[in-house]
Amino acid sequence: MQRKKIVTIGGGTGSFTLLSGLKKYPVDISAIVSMADDGGSTGILRDELGVLPPGDVRQCLVALSDSPDMLRNLMSYRFEEGGLKGHSFGNLFLSALEKINKSFTKGVEEASLILKVRGDVIPVTDQDTNVFMELKDGKKLRGEEDINHNFDIEKIGIKKNYLFPKARANKKAIEKLLKADIIVIGPGNYYCSIVPNLLVDGIADAIRKSKAIVVYNCNLVNKKGHTETFSLDDYVDSINSYLGGERVDFVTFNSKKPTSKLIEHYESQKELLIPFNVSSRSNRKYRVISSDTLSSKEISFSPGDILAKQRAFIRHDSDKLAKVLIMILELGDYESIIREIV
Amino acid sequence: MQRKKIVTIGGGTGSFTLLSGLKKYPVDISAIVSMADDGGSTGILRDELGVLPPGDVRQCLVALSDSPDMLRNLMSYRFEEGGLKGHSFGNLFLSALEKINKSFTKGVEEASLILKVRGDVIPVTDQDTNVFMELKDGKKLRGEEDINHNFDIEKIGIKKNYLFPKARANKKAIEKLLKADIIVIGPGNYYCSIVPNLLVDGIADAIRKSKAIVVYNCNLVNKKGHTETFSLDDYVDSINSYLGGERVDFVTFNSKKPTSKLIEHYESQKELLIPFNVSSRSNRKYRVISSDTLSSKEISFSPGDILAKQRAFIRHDSDKLAKVLIMILELGDYESIIREIV
Repeated sequence: MQRKKIVTIGGGTGSFTLLSGLKKYPVDISAIVSMADDGGSTGILRDELGVLPPGDVRQCLVALSDSPDMLRNLMSYRFEEGGLKGHSFGNLFLSALEKINKSFTKGVEEASLILKVRGDVIPVTDQDTNVFMELKDGKKLRGEEDINHNFDIEKIGIKKNYLFPKARANKKAIEKLLKADIIVIGPGNYYCSIVPNLLVDGIADAIRKSKAIVVYNCNLVNKKGHTETFSLDDYVDSINSYLGGERVDFVTFNSKKPTSKLIEHYESQKELLIPFNVSSRSNRKYRVISSDTLSSKEISFSPGDILAKQRAFIRHDSDKLAKVLIMILELGDYESIIREIV
Repeated sequence: MQRKKIVTIGGGTGSFTLLSGLKKYPVDISAIVSMADDGGSTGILRDELGVLPPGDVRQCLVALSDSPDMLRNLMSYRFEEGGLKGHSFGNLFLSALEKINKSFTKGVEEASLILKVRGDVIPVTDQDTNVFMELKDGKKLRGEEDINHNFDIEKIGIKKNYLFPKARANKKAIEKLLKADIIVIGPGNYYCSIVPNLLVDGIADAIRKSKAIVVYNCNLVNKKGHTETFSLDDYVDSINSYLGGERVDFVTFNSKKPTSKLIEHYESQKELLIPFNVSSRSNRKYRVISSDTLSSKEISFSPGDILAKQRAFIRHDSDKLAKVLIMILELGDYESIIREIV
């Protein structure tokens, strides 16, 4: 029997979580990865070496790698001193492979062999581009880093967001989308990891044309100043608008409440749990699967761990999330189940 | 039948050449590697990250690696721009592994697994040390880099050279030396790659005590200001003085003359072919095996290739050199052949 084909779309920690769970199932995984990152180690490498952004791809490679832990730890290791400070070893690895192969996509293929990656990690484009956002007051935000740290986006409103220069989708990404059984969007930073994929020429078209089930993994918390007031339905509407049609079939939604201590911590930073009110809309063309997909792992707050502090502590659980997606996939005949899941 | 045990002692390009040839034979190889390097990428990493010098070890790992070419090329790749300029990727690889494992020796072991290294690469010591040279006029040279670029050493004369702080030999190095069938010293930069190994506490003792055949691979050209006037016999005398006894059994010597164009190029930089005059000494306790071990490969002089310009162009041929050593090893009963080779 042929393996079912899953294509994920995202970038960063969200994709890492999702792929780490999916990897444990006998499915054919293709991870399409955002190429708009321009912050941190990745930003420095883009500026100084003229390479394409390795950071998001690295996380997906590590998630899908069947290598020993040592090699996977190495890829995530960050130098802490001197001129190398802040650089992730895995980013240097991908940049060196890009230089040697004179192609980022070829470099990622070589990296996949070295790291024994189960599945395909596909940069959404192999063109050097940046994501821009024009606000309704005329202000232009340039690059993911700039967008990520602007907290007036929702208040002022978005006039348009786009890639410059325009970027064509990687051929392989299109092929995988067209042949997929299921396309899974998110979770991830909405304007910085999810939308930049949908802005690449050819991606939305391919998703519309594909016969795959399209699933959106709704985030857990809203991002301050970006999607601060979004409900689950607002996310779906927004995604469908980028896709150019009502294409989302399923939405996974976490039903488990985090501890009140964690919720307070987030609320103090104006990041609230994403609301979903079943009765607020009667004509949904998508089914919402509400279940516990929350990680119950304690995240350690070691005093010197700057990275941990920057990260979300309300997170998806890899295994729980993957289980819901595999369930959707295995239900198989989509038309027959649509009545059974509320 | 148990494989014969070869232990090499050296560092840098010389060891790379030697090991690349030996690797093709079914022998058990241990490469003991100098840990005194403090120049270039290695020097920066030592200073900034507080790691042990990875450069020489990297070259030995690559030489003995059974990995695909891509991974071996990656290890030798040097970044060319920005803050990473000049860093060899393989050095960053070893330094990150040292950091993660909190031990250079453990990091080298992990690297050996990742790179599928055939044999053992053993840092001569895992203590952080530097090589010093005190000249007869009282001047002190600190570190390999300083010594390498001083061209008055031979003229003024060496009072003593030593490691500071004192360094104990890696236990495994001692074990391998004691059990070796053959110990091969050189080729390599004499004061910077060969002698620093012999200065490590325990190494000379172990070589003296070992029942192994000891071979010295004589360099091809003398180094200006260092060993400018040395003959083959002078090298052997010097090595024996570091070993604390007449321990060298065989010397390999190249009998093939390089092209006159190459010789002229070297002579213009005061680097002459090392002379060997059979009749200048009658009581040699070592046998000299004089044969063609010269590389006939054209080294490309690409205009932008700074590295190539810094390197020697009169080089040993890996395969020819290995063949002579395997011959010595296979002759087996050393006492019976000593009369047959002149």
